[in-house]
Amino acid sequence: MTGHVTFVSAGPGDPDLLTVKAVKALGQADAVLYDDLSSGPILALAKPGADLVGVGKRAGRASPKQDHVSRLLVDYALTGAHVVRLKSGDSGIFGRLEEELTAVRAAGIPCEIIPGVTSASAAAALAGIPLTRRTHAQRVQFITAADTSGKLPPGLNLPALADPKATTVVFMGKRTFPALAAALIAHGLSPDTPALLAEAVSTPEQHLHRSTIAGLAAVLAEDRGPLVGLIIFGALAEGDL
Amino acid sequence: MTGHVTFVSAGPGDPDLLTVKAVKALGQADAVLYDDLSSGPILALAKPGADLVGVGKRAGRASPKQDHVSRLLVDYALTGAHVVRLKSGDSGIFGRLEEELTAVRAAGIPCEIIPGVTSASAAAALAGIPLTRRTHAQRVQFITAADTSGKLPPGLNLPALADPKATTVVFMGKRTFPALAAALIAHGLSPDTPALLAEAVSTPEQHLHRSTIAGLAAVLAEDRGPLVGLIIFGALAEGDL
Repeated sequence: MTGHVTFVSAGPGDPDLLTVKAVKALGQADAVLYDDLSSGPILALAKPGADLVGVGKRAGRASPKQDHVSRLLVDYALTGAHVVRLKSGDSGIFGRLEEELTAVRAAGIPCEIIPGVTSASAAAALAGIPLTRRTHAQRVQFITAADTSGKLPPGLNLPALADPKATTVVFMGKRTFPALAAALIAHGLSPDTPALLAEAVSTPEQHLHRSTIAGLAAVLAEDRGPLVGLIIFGALAEGDL
Repeated sequence: MTGHVTFVSAGPGDPDLLTVKAVKALGQADAVLYDDLSSGPILALAKPGADLVGVGKRAGRASPKQDHVSRLLVDYALTGAHVVRLKSGDSGIFGRLEEELTAVRAAGIPCEIIPGVTSASAAAALAGIPLTRRTHAQRVQFITAADTSGKLPPGLNLPALADPKATTVVFMGKRTFPALAAALIAHGLSPDTPALLAEAVSTPEQHLHRSTIAGLAAVLAEDRGPLVGLIIFGALAEGDL
């Protein structure tokens, strides 16, 4: 008797920003595997008696346990359980979905993906900023730039990121933002380009910091706080920030 | 007595892909302004007796009525009503949020934006494709390419779109995709790059067509169906399509 796996996108943090479908899946699961980023109020939606298993991937830390998570998912499902794998934001966007999906499929276990509200959409909405504009922001792009050393990850497409007609959202980019901003300015993007740092979006700890790419780079050069947080910059209207 | 406006992101179509917060807002609104793209099952979540007002912006059609929609929003709110402005997908991503938000703010009416599941996330999830991959797809980008004439909109950043290490989602791009694919191939993107056309995602009419950018361009050159639909192409794994 094989169970199944549902990859559930948990949204940015507020339990009310889960989809109805995600709430239903949580309420039916026998086991819920969650990361450190998932909050208590979301886990409280699991059915009474469900196994709640923290798999402890912290932002910015190397993840030697990725194989372990995939094995755990498969092992739970092979007992016949309905397993929910909870991912923050939208699981398909910087959610490391690929590795686990591949493992589950390779084991022949039926699975489903429930899309969710990406933290990028939530940060923009809560700051009152549309990510696209008819004339100015015709392209929106998301990248991740996590590197505990502060160096930029290799392979970034800097000309694409320095396009003044795009809106860019950087996931996990607090530590590397000073280096990124310098590279973008070197590629011609104005230092005065509006930028927003959004932390703990939609939770009681939400913090929004409005600045420019140069200003935010200066602040973050001194910041040694947690890596989690989104940075949005680019073709935002002057009134937004 | 001034009311207020809540911009509610309705997600891709399935009412279960609304957020809990969106369902609550719909259940409390005195008036709901919706586009043609919103489906009946979502409007059924409005409270009994609420005014349901179709504002009739069809995909691909010029929108001479944009001012009219903004005025209607403001007028309803000035009667003291709680007005929900329902937008498909995530309102901040190609939802024409800017114009209406500006009008509501200019009138001094309090407003809130509820983020939602963008159709891009939903299409990817329902097709079983992560939009990002740790090594291959480090950047995901969304553009819109609606033009009833079949011509590409001006100002597209073709080098950014032809990046083989990005995943690209094209909103409203069915009519222009043959021209876009030709331009991308001329900029060096392989004609064999995997591509997915996703229509009516998450609804009973959902249709997924898996191909390559060259193959999809050939199919769409002959297609005279509705413009609505998403195209995803780029750094997808071979097993995905």
